[in-house]
Amino acid sequence: MEPGSANRIEHAAGNGLLNRRAFVQKSIVWLSATAAGSSMAATTGDSAPDWMKTPGAPFRGYGQPSPYTESAQRKHLQPYGEMAPGSGASVTPLQDLHGVITPNGLHFERSHNGVPAIDPEEHELIVHGMVGQALKFSYNDLLRYPTVTRTCFIECSGNGLFNSNLVSQPMQLPVGHLHGVMSTAEWTGVPLSILLDEAGMVTNAKWLLAEGADAAGMSRSIPVSKAMDDTMIALFQNGEPIRPEQGYPMRLLLPGFEGNTHVKWLRRIKVTDAPTYTKDETSKYSDLLPDGTANLFSLKMGVKSAITRPALPYKMAGKGFYEVSGLAWSGHGSVTRVEVSADTGRSWSDAELSAPILPMSPVRFRVPWHWDGSPSVLMSRAHDDQGNIQMPRSEWSAKYAVGHLYHNNSIQAWGIATDGEISNVWS
Amino acid sequence: MEPGSANRIEHAAGNGLLNRRAFVQKSIVWLSATAAGSSMAATTGDSAPDWMKTPGAPFRGYGQPSPYTESAQRKHLQPYGEMAPGSGASVTPLQDLHGVITPNGLHFERSHNGVPAIDPEEHELIVHGMVGQALKFSYNDLLRYPTVTRTCFIECSGNGLFNSNLVSQPMQLPVGHLHGVMSTAEWTGVPLSILLDEAGMVTNAKWLLAEGADAAGMSRSIPVSKAMDDTMIALFQNGEPIRPEQGYPMRLLLPGFEGNTHVKWLRRIKVTDAPTYTKDETSKYSDLLPDGTANLFSLKMGVKSAITRPALPYKMAGKGFYEVSGLAWSGHGSVTRVEVSADTGRSWSDAELSAPILPMSPVRFRVPWHWDGSPSVLMSRAHDDQGNIQMPRSEWSAKYAVGHLYHNNSIQAWGIATDGEISNVWS
Repeated sequence: MEPGSANRIEHAAGNGLLNRRAFVQKSIVWLSATAAGSSMAATTGDSAPDWMKTPGAPFRGYGQPSPYTESAQRKHLQPYGEMAPGSGASVTPLQDLHGVITPNGLHFERSHNGVPAIDPEEHELIVHGMVGQALKFSYNDLLRYPTVTRTCFIECSGNGLFNSNLVSQPMQLPVGHLHGVMSTAEWTGVPLSILLDEAGMVTNAKWLLAEGADAAGMSRSIPVSKAMDDTMIALFQNGEPIRPEQGYPMRLLLPGFEGNTHVKWLRRIKVTDAPTYTKDETSKYSDLLPDGTANLFSLKMGVKSAITRPALPYKMAGKGFYEVSGLAWSGHGSVTRVEVSADTGRSWSDAELSAPILPMSPVRFRVPWHWDGSPSVLMSRAHDDQGNIQMPRSEWSAKYAVGHLYHNNSIQAWGIATDGEISNVWS
Repeated sequence: MEPGSANRIEHAAGNGLLNRRAFVQKSIVWLSATAAGSSMAATTGDSAPDWMKTPGAPFRGYGQPSPYTESAQRKHLQPYGEMAPGSGASVTPLQDLHGVITPNGLHFERSHNGVPAIDPEEHELIVHGMVGQALKFSYNDLLRYPTVTRTCFIECSGNGLFNSNLVSQPMQLPVGHLHGVMSTAEWTGVPLSILLDEAGMVTNAKWLLAEGADAAGMSRSIPVSKAMDDTMIALFQNGEPIRPEQGYPMRLLLPGFEGNTHVKWLRRIKVTDAPTYTKDETSKYSDLLPDGTANLFSLKMGVKSAITRPALPYKMAGKGFYEVSGLAWSGHGSVTRVEVSADTGRSWSDAELSAPILPMSPVRFRVPWHWDGSPSVLMSRAHDDQGNIQMPRSEWSAKYAVGHLYHNNSIQAWGIATDGEISNVWS
């Protein structure tokens, strides 16, 4: 067989989507290798690269990426510019990442007035309000408490705003800009239920107010049911103390809930009998409806997926075999199925999901594709174990008012032109 | 109940080990919180901390840890000092980490002649030897191939050497020095089997030679059976391109095999019919036996665990409740059970294992402990699904010659003195 050729290909859906078994069936000769030929001299040492001829760099206390990976950086979105340089977001470069975990240096940031430089020795967490006894906890206190570990995503409810009702036509932006206010980490911390029990929360408590120690005093109302279920005071992120922009020394973690309820730099939890209706949950993070009203407290993030390769800002490198790969997640539970279409949704193929599949944690999906060079539209559609299915953008858009931007979990479509150019398309 | 008190405690083993359900039974009042009292003024803003009074730091392309977390650094072990600053290891600070994943900046390093600064555009991987056609792959070629993702540990076979037959008495070192040449990441890369298939590996091939592009030309022999099973050419570590000290732009990953078979800066794979017996697998990484012979190719890392808190270099903060927590792993399969003893192995309690439990991936184990202030010895003992059980140090030591240092997976014991001092003890 020639490179780039295939025999016994099993097609799984229209326009070149192949059966997942093609990956392991020797039925594909991927086009990329070339005969080694004269390069074999390198194996004798005659033409060893320069870096084999001199001792390399010594050890470092804390490692950094290679200087050759500079494209894998967060990009800043600062709508108020120099007037408020700490207000905005920086997005995870999904186009350059593979797997599920986001490395700590690339976890998205969303700040309302910058990242405070908190000395953990001077930081206190206070639990008060409808409790038997108000309590305060130092950072070192919390390190003595029992801990739990779980991997989950955090997604800003503004993720997807560049495909929302805020804009009138699809914007040509990298997949990290379109969907990268979503990141994943393994979090370790103290179950909030232990602290509420210890403070003696009254039985008719219904809500909490959670407040951060940033200059915005960012604060949100949290249902007590969620607090007592799986909420933690997160202290560690992918093993190490959480990063300043993720809330060092401590943040709330509410698996599956919209990002800004995971209050960073957490300094206060007040037990209440009703929502507090803070500025951060009335002026923002509410859903504008066509009749002029708004939904508040749409806390669970919807089932969603996006193809991260092929995707903007890259282009196709000619016809042939590709792995179509992306991420799928749901704030309602576990992803059960991801379908991929290469013919604008006329036919769909089930993608392979990477193990383990965990609730409120993204899965990596993959499907092989033979692109014949014709104009194509790639789409992915995720399902979760609560019966939710990702919907087309047109259907999502019709549910909300003009200008509405939050909770856009609609299907992402990528147009592929004959010359290999990729574009964000609405279909 | 008073802080630090408990009622209805269910004891699970001797000397204060509690039932795991104590974590969620409201039966423990952890000692750490104090009544909030006058601190409540802080909630009104009157005494807001300085960092709430000024805008915080703006966004960064690549985030870094808080300056207050400097203790969470790798420590260098350079046996040849300035003569060979790139020869040695740097260890993961297990005493400061929680969860399972190791952040990329703290993954242990083991280098034989430093970290090469490889330009991926000039790097090639050659597959040759007993193949139909020798092939070469550029970095960009490999990015076109199908990928797989899995979480697993990598452990240097010298991990545990400070408790090995190389030393005559227990050394008082942090748990990161004793067991931190073991780290965990989510790796993504290309299955090696695809490349070997494409090169047309002959059917009677039995071994591979894998060589790195560092100045040491580090090279190891790999059984073909492992290569065709679950070996990958790893390109991504916790999502991003792998770090220079982890082999950028590519390394081998052989889940469960000893660390230096995961050849970094991989430049060449030669298919052979026998092991090559390189300097790196004869002068080192072999097991010296009492009769003067040596075992070669002891490739699977044994089942092992270590308590990482309480542990050196820290000490106890007085009597009361503690979470005993650590990591357990096996190169043979999945950890099924971890037992913890607080009475020098006379009685054992099953620890809680954090989900998900995956083959060749560590688990975090936890058990609650009420320390009454008396002298105690804490130990952990791991089991795997292949029937392996971690053995006492004395039993492990007797299997090998004086001076032998590799593959020490014996039980770690921590002595706790009445004054709270912790020590590494052999029992």
